[in-house]
Amino acid sequence: MRVALLAHELFPERAKTAVGVLRYADHEVVAVLDRDLAGDRVNDHVPDVQDAPIVADAADAPDCDALVVGVAPIGGGFEESWRPDVRAAIRQGWDVVAGLHYLLAEDEEFARLADEQGVDLRDVRAPPDDLSVATGEGVDARVVLTVGTDCSSGKMTGCFELRDAARERGLDAAVVPTGQTGIMIAGWGIAIDRVISDFAAGATERLVHRASDNDVLFVEGQGALAHPAYSGVTAAILHGSHPDSLVLCHVAGRETVGGYDTYTLPDPERYLGLYESVAAPVAPATVDAGLLNTQGLDGEEAREAVDGYGDRLGVPATDPVRYDADAVLDAVLE
Amino acid sequence: MRVALLAHELFPERAKTAVGVLRYADHEVVAVLDRDLAGDRVNDHVPDVQDAPIVADAADAPDCDALVVGVAPIGGGFEESWRPDVRAAIRQGWDVVAGLHYLLAEDEEFARLADEQGVDLRDVRAPPDDLSVATGEGVDARVVLTVGTDCSSGKMTGCFELRDAARERGLDAAVVPTGQTGIMIAGWGIAIDRVISDFAAGATERLVHRASDNDVLFVEGQGALAHPAYSGVTAAILHGSHPDSLVLCHVAGRETVGGYDTYTLPDPERYLGLYESVAAPVAPATVDAGLLNTQGLDGEEAREAVDGYGDRLGVPATDPVRYDADAVLDAVLE
Repeated sequence: MRVALLAHELFPERAKTAVGVLRYADHEVVAVLDRDLAGDRVNDHVPDVQDAPIVADAADAPDCDALVVGVAPIGGGFEESWRPDVRAAIRQGWDVVAGLHYLLAEDEEFARLADEQGVDLRDVRAPPDDLSVATGEGVDARVVLTVGTDCSSGKMTGCFELRDAARERGLDAAVVPTGQTGIMIAGWGIAIDRVISDFAAGATERLVHRASDNDVLFVEGQGALAHPAYSGVTAAILHGSHPDSLVLCHVAGRETVGGYDTYTLPDPERYLGLYESVAAPVAPATVDAGLLNTQGLDGEEAREAVDGYGDRLGVPATDPVRYDADAVLDAVLE
Repeated sequence: MRVALLAHELFPERAKTAVGVLRYADHEVVAVLDRDLAGDRVNDHVPDVQDAPIVADAADAPDCDALVVGVAPIGGGFEESWRPDVRAAIRQGWDVVAGLHYLLAEDEEFARLADEQGVDLRDVRAPPDDLSVATGEGVDARVVLTVGTDCSSGKMTGCFELRDAARERGLDAAVVPTGQTGIMIAGWGIAIDRVISDFAAGATERLVHRASDNDVLFVEGQGALAHPAYSGVTAAILHGSHPDSLVLCHVAGRETVGGYDTYTLPDPERYLGLYESVAAPVAPATVDAGLLNTQGLDGEEAREAVDGYGDRLGVPATDPVRYDADAVLDAVLE
């Protein structure tokens, strides 16, 4: 699929979805829309992903199959400044893919235009309407779940990096996406944070069963087990995925919960114990590896931070974007 | 409010909501509807609650303000055999209150009839539509949360018993209801299991703030922290309520998860550690007391079971339906 990525005024630091698609999706990206950076190229800002021109609006982008909304604002709202681009995309015959709480298919203008043009509006965050409670049954595939000390700590990125490393070894490996960005990259999944809480573990279980013909599944965790707002989503995925192995993700230097600065993050080694002890009665998984996001550290600092993180946890660790994931992959496949 | 309770073929053992209303609500119960027991009286089956006649259908019941659906079937469906009673109630000018996933207000016949008669259909499980994520802010009132080793372990009952004991001491005390039965008894609340998982902690927080003008709040926990299906709801309430004190509820002799018999329940003392360690980073609450459901044990067995449970946890324990809650109340108010 050929796509254009909408990321106005936020590319690349605050456009997690756009950067995720550039880095991990099979899609060919024909352009990034960011009116602040028009004229630049993607590789001017993110060197190690596929390159593409950055343009000011949809009319300036090459023809393609779909416009992907590549930003995920807190609250999941729709920015009215995006409307002309979504309108233009539909008129150009492109599908529009979004992961917002605001559903494009329920927007009167977009729904009417899409109907006239015969294009699809795909709201990947809208859950299926036939979900149910978990049965408690796991799968035969090896299930590796990324868990975190906080939101935005590298759980999704870790899954895709570990999947690619496993595929290089000839394994059938898949990411099980549980959030909007992962769903856009992989093309399937359920946004567990949008599911009725009674059904959140059941929805996770359904995803894992659906992918169970692979040798190994990398399940995208969400939130953190002691997060003041999102621990429910975390616990549902922890039990609903029936993991064999856990990978603890952390951001180097982060000491308080993102957006909740009065809450101090527990130490990673304490978090390791929390995850293992809560998982145990349902699925006796151990934290077999650590992933550390070292963005912002220089080379030597990053290496030291990763080594220190592995030592604290007592397991192999890496920054999978910066370094290879071989030792971590060995540890989670054992 | 004067109410009739619908509990066909399930009173009293499998009519948790009806028995809860009889025992704890301020409502005057004019009749219980159970076609299998018509002609008996409530006290023939449940001796220690308000008495009322048991009748075969709504037409046989004395006039009142509302018909309350007093059963909560797994899955939350509507039994078509209840339709004649709901229809008759509306025609008699009664409101109808239900806590089902199936919403009476969306039933075409009931909605039309209710409109004609000017009566309300109150679906207490339908969440408010303006929920949002938790802010992470607690309240000044003392917050006591009942947590459990399983579903149906006495968390709701414990809250109402402790509330009544606190009121006897002259304290302003309120139950914060998080499930359909508690909501029907107290007349307010949110069914957290029905809330979008991203907003579950936020919805709990809203309830606690709403009741914060009391001296002490008894928050109704849900599920269990290591439950294969419902741990997400549990974790959201654990953090969203910002508890000062936890009370661990357990059913004497239960060894496997109800409805999930392949899962062994962790020992209560291990569960105590799970709750405290996961709560700590957000709200450093301790398990200060235990509640044991000894239904089915004879007097001496029950006393021994309660003493043994308290010894294992190292805190005061009681069966609040069978014995007084004084020592437990002392412990959670300290």
